[in-house]
Amino acid sequence: VEFASDNTAGVCPEVLDALLAESSRPGPAYGDDPTSKRLGSLVAEAFEHEVAVYPVSTGTAANSLALAATSPPWGGVLCHDEAHVVVDELAAPTVLSGGLTLHRLPGDHGRIDPAALTDVAVRADHGVHTVPFSALSLTQSTEAGTRYTADEIADLAGAAHAAGMVVHMDGARFANAVAATGASPAELSWRAGVDVLCLGATKGGALAAEAVVVFDPGRAPHLDRHRKRTGHLLSKQRLVSAQLLGWLQDDAWLRHADHANAMAARLAEVVTSRRLTLLHPVETNMVFLDLSPEQEAVLGSTGAAYYPRPLRSGRVEARLVTSWSTTVSDIDRFADALDGVGLGDRA
Amino acid sequence: VEFASDNTAGVCPEVLDALLAESSRPGPAYGDDPTSKRLGSLVAEAFEHEVAVYPVSTGTAANSLALAATSPPWGGVLCHDEAHVVVDELAAPTVLSGGLTLHRLPGDHGRIDPAALTDVAVRADHGVHTVPFSALSLTQSTEAGTRYTADEIADLAGAAHAAGMVVHMDGARFANAVAATGASPAELSWRAGVDVLCLGATKGGALAAEAVVVFDPGRAPHLDRHRKRTGHLLSKQRLVSAQLLGWLQDDAWLRHADHANAMAARLAEVVTSRRLTLLHPVETNMVFLDLSPEQEAVLGSTGAAYYPRPLRSGRVEARLVTSWSTTVSDIDRFADALDGVGLGDRA
Amino acid sequence: VEFASDNTAGVCPEVLDALLAESSRPGPAYGDDPTSKRLGSLVAEAFEHEVAVYPVSTGTAANSLALAATSPPWGGVLCHDEAHVVVDELAAPTVLSGGLTLHRLPGDHGRIDPAALTDVAVRADHGVHTVPFSALSLTQSTEAGTRYTADEIADLAGAAHAAGMVVHMDGARFANAVAATGASPAELSWRAGVDVLCLGATKGGALAAEAVVVFDPGRAPHLDRHRKRTGHLLSKQRLVSAQLLGWLQDDAWLRHADHANAMAARLAEVVTSRRLTLLHPVETNMVFLDLSPEQEAVLGSTGAAYYPRPLRSGRVEARLVTSWSTTVSDIDRFADALDGVGLGDRA
Amino acid sequence: VEFASDNTAGVCPEVLDALLAESSRPGPAYGDDPTSKRLGSLVAEAFEHEVAVYPVSTGTAANSLALAATSPPWGGVLCHDEAHVVVDELAAPTVLSGGLTLHRLPGDHGRIDPAALTDVAVRADHGVHTVPFSALSLTQSTEAGTRYTADEIADLAGAAHAAGMVVHMDGARFANAVAATGASPAELSWRAGVDVLCLGATKGGALAAEAVVVFDPGRAPHLDRHRKRTGHLLSKQRLVSAQLLGWLQDDAWLRHADHANAMAARLAEVVTSRRLTLLHPVETNMVFLDLSPEQEAVLGSTGAAYYPRPLRSGRVEARLVTSWSTTVSDIDRFADALDGVGLGDRA
Repeated sequence: VEFASDNTAGVCPEVLDALLAESSRPGPAYGDDPTSKRLGSLVAEAFEHEVAVYPVSTGTAANSLALAATSPPWGGVLCHDEAHVVVDELAAPTVLSGGLTLHRLPGDHGRIDPAALTDVAVRADHGVHTVPFSALSLTQSTEAGTRYTADEIADLAGAAHAAGMVVHMDGARFANAVAATGASPAELSWRAGVDVLCLGATKGGALAAEAVVVFDPGRAPHLDRHRKRTGHLLSKQRLVSAQLLGWLQDDAWLRHADHANAMAARLAEVVTSRRLTLLHPVETNMVFLDLSPEQEAVLGSTGAAYYPRPLRSGRVEARLVTSWSTTVSDIDRFADALDGVGLGDRA
Repeated sequence: VEFASDNTAGVCPEVLDALLAESSRPGPAYGDDPTSKRLGSLVAEAFEHEVAVYPVSTGTAANSLALAATSPPWGGVLCHDEAHVVVDELAAPTVLSGGLTLHRLPGDHGRIDPAALTDVAVRADHGVHTVPFSALSLTQSTEAGTRYTADEIADLAGAAHAAGMVVHMDGARFANAVAATGASPAELSWRAGVDVLCLGATKGGALAAEAVVVFDPGRAPHLDRHRKRTGHLLSKQRLVSAQLLGWLQDDAWLRHADHANAMAARLAEVVTSRRLTLLHPVETNMVFLDLSPEQEAVLGSTGAAYYPRPLRSGRVEARLVTSWSTTVSDIDRFADALDGVGLGDRA
Repeated sequence: VEFASDNTAGVCPEVLDALLAESSRPGPAYGDDPTSKRLGSLVAEAFEHEVAVYPVSTGTAANSLALAATSPPWGGVLCHDEAHVVVDELAAPTVLSGGLTLHRLPGDHGRIDPAALTDVAVRADHGVHTVPFSALSLTQSTEAGTRYTADEIADLAGAAHAAGMVVHMDGARFANAVAATGASPAELSWRAGVDVLCLGATKGGALAAEAVVVFDPGRAPHLDRHRKRTGHLLSKQRLVSAQLLGWLQDDAWLRHADHANAMAARLAEVVTSRRLTLLHPVETNMVFLDLSPEQEAVLGSTGAAYYPRPLRSGRVEARLVTSWSTTVSDIDRFADALDGVGLGDRA
Repeated sequence: VEFASDNTAGVCPEVLDALLAESSRPGPAYGDDPTSKRLGSLVAEAFEHEVAVYPVSTGTAANSLALAATSPPWGGVLCHDEAHVVVDELAAPTVLSGGLTLHRLPGDHGRIDPAALTDVAVRADHGVHTVPFSALSLTQSTEAGTRYTADEIADLAGAAHAAGMVVHMDGARFANAVAATGASPAELSWRAGVDVLCLGATKGGALAAEAVVVFDPGRAPHLDRHRKRTGHLLSKQRLVSAQLLGWLQDDAWLRHADHANAMAARLAEVVTSRRLTLLHPVETNMVFLDLSPEQEAVLGSTGAAYYPRPLRSGRVEARLVTSWSTTVSDIDRFADALDGVGLGDRA
């Protein structure tokens, strides 16, 4: 059973259909095409706000370019200690911006502790000797599979804005947070203070399609230059725009996210009913188990694909991710496999 | 009629089929998948040489990463005065490498003049004060729609190697050169001295798929780090590998390139039979017209899509590009349109 | 009284004499001169090891170039949480290296906790997704005015080497540590595992002169390129080499450092005899007081120059630094001033 | 006899005196000192304009930071084909700015041909695909030892401003141009359209002191950040400011430059009276000879220090530079040496 990540799934039907339709005719290169324009309108509608939209093909590119375009190159970006931008991108935000540095903030279950943010934001300024904090980066939903509520975002964003920072959201799994909270896209973004959102479709069912969404285009006047000079402007951009369009139209993105979340809830039920321990509350499409090394070895013997990581405690974290393509029968087969290897203590 | 570029076409059937097949099942992320491995084998077979293959989604990324991984960051890259790397990429090779500089060499019809190369290669060395030339970048087929023969490449590559440079080939339209010369992929690349080839499939019929092909993997030991730290490692890389696989299998790439070349030849016949002047010999899939401003205005009135550029002579260059999707009827309609507006002098 | 920093002093007589002598005659530019060669020999003799020596004019340049030349640009540098390289250089090591990132390790009194180093060094490797730790940076003497013993350095360096890292030492105040420990320059550097030392003379009495000392030149083959391409190669380098030569000759550097340390010890006696609290043991030339805000205001009213910093505890750190130019009478005047404002509780 | 460069001389008395005076007392670090402030006033007075002044220790740093602070990182800098910034700095302007690219313009005797500037300035704009020219860099006096008149500067600067560029002047030998033209510093800089001047004192008699002079501080709001993040902020900046102050006070800089120019004129007389051929008019402090390889070998046998360079013609350029420290007797000894080896044809 495939729980390694939501980027191991294929492409969802709505995206494929849009892609095939767009591909059936020629169209202008580099984003100067009707589909890219329609994408802009659709995002504006979905978020109830004027936007500038920049499609790219990776989430690392989206995050890096969003930060590069809204911070000066000597700025500092505050993010959670486990954030993808600081843990998994081999310093791409630093490289693509020409020098931004990332500063880690603690917080339980993947969410930044507001007190930690306030603490650094009021730090003494030593002028030219000190990296000025220029951006707060929030991950929604978080690396721990939890999500921020609109109020929690507003609190953090308010503190950031008060300290002169821009607020960036890494939304590789933004759809899952929207589906989970029931809040609107607007409520979880600009209404709560987000200035630039990296809206990820790849994990949600696209081939390779992410959109940098700038709510106040004046904040990122040169994003197009940053994108081009780093090799991230696609010649057949319309085919990426088409993916995003197919994904967003008729709320396909939210239906798929809702499905993935439901599969994770079902998966959580499977493991907790066997008295396996969760590391984090299951709020979106990821389930984290806290296993002994022996248990993890047994889990591995089921043949299920997941992502293990040693913990400082000596125990092992197992991350299981569901996606638009996970089925009820996947979960059921996994439950049977657990029982087959005798993992967990059936209540 | 669409002659603006070969990147305005859609996706060719072979690529779409491969993409749909790959998308129908889950698979590992980040290139650790069977399809990416099969791609490596297929490229090795097509080029009759062991290779390391790095798929990316833009040609600018391919060129920049290939150069970054084979030159030190203080190196200098020699290229043709009209090369895409120096004219059209907003300094991406400089940005993604951390400082490479590009140096222009003259040459007629898009081909580097060997004497110009020799001239700079023997320039006095002033040690640490001087940018050391570390790479020669050849464009095949060229920006002028011409191509180098294997012997011409070997001459230039030999001079570059003798001066300690690596030889890079921007092969955004490599397929068209192979189809046009009748030489094998091997003969036009490593056998002639090319060390790293950026094999472009996007212009040839893919969605967004380019492959950096390294013939001596020891020459680019950290290309994977460069790719990741610049945001160019795709999570669903297997879907890009699949595109390349579908394009290469059963020589689809060469058939499409041959077709595009044939359409360009037919287009050239249309314009020369009307005594319009060609700027460059038509050797692959591009036709360049040398028009008076008045003629160019008339050409524009046909509604055909092409790329005009003012020349220093006061005249205007009109670039017309054919692709895998250009049809005979497109050419015929264009011929009729020319006659309709009375452009050219029917022989 | 001047205790703001050891970089507020003028130039010591030995350096001035050497500078004047060198300036009285012409000599080759860019380091190709006899004085720069003599400097190399003298450093080799002082450290009992072959060396490559690269003079520059700032400590930030020295640290950044030393790290840039020994790490790949995607590397990670481990350093103390309070290290100058991560706190005070506005990301210069990142900028001059083209992307190095800095990672903070905790530790009391400015010294890295060996357990914290081991902890991160054994962290799981996720290949291309993870910044590989490529260097350990030690500060000697530390930002807290303490120093590492040779054994402490050897422990940390051993762990770093075992994990494949290079060991860098920020020696802006290396002389003070040598004078304080009584160990030889060799014992506190390469014999304990240091691969590259930034030997600072500016704080010790020079005008603007720091030397990057590479013990195994093969480890930093391109340091000269890094220095030139960042604007740090001095045309009249011989005048900087002369400063370093005058400073090192006849152990002037160690005499000045010993003097500064003695002045700090006397200063510590002044404050502790008045029952003011020290934040850190006084081991070299810096004294840190732990004051209430009210006490700090009174200290400020003496007119003495020092560096205050708010602490998380609500109290205030006051840093007082002595130098080669501090006199006994400076300390005595300060003692009188304390008594004049009634600060401290005379035992 | 020493004609290798004007950076092989020692430090002139006025600079030494100022340095010694400043060094005799402590003072604040990092430029927050009275001497740095006085320098600002003196430069403003000398140039009859408000200025922001940033001292650094190398000309490469000055040029690179001036360009980095006034252009966006994706900008393009136009400069003469032989300009130091593009020929001799190992891409430092590119590195320190995070990506600026340099574009060469032709022109006789080291001066940019105004027609060549106009030609590129009116080039078609292809938006995000094209490097936008953001700065014109003029070298005064030029690499060929000639100088621009105020009118020539105004013509070039006017064209640059009309095209939206900033005008930078590499003034490593600005003093020589002022002395040679008789125009005022203001007339050769801001009055003629220069926005930022790198005023070099090192070649003119300082130890290591260059000043970036910004005439409209709003044009370079973050120059201090750029300087710090590249390691070019000096801790004992007041000792560099003192050098500049001593050099500028009482017109010492212009007297020394006038002397150097006069020595070059005398040297030119020596060589032309022997019917040796000059490559360029001798307008400041450099003399360029056009020699056959045989003649150059003979010249070398005199033991004089100069800088030879092979020319495309097969002949050899010999560059001889005079400085503040060149004496009449140096020239006379050189004349005798020429006669001793029989070089030239005595009229």
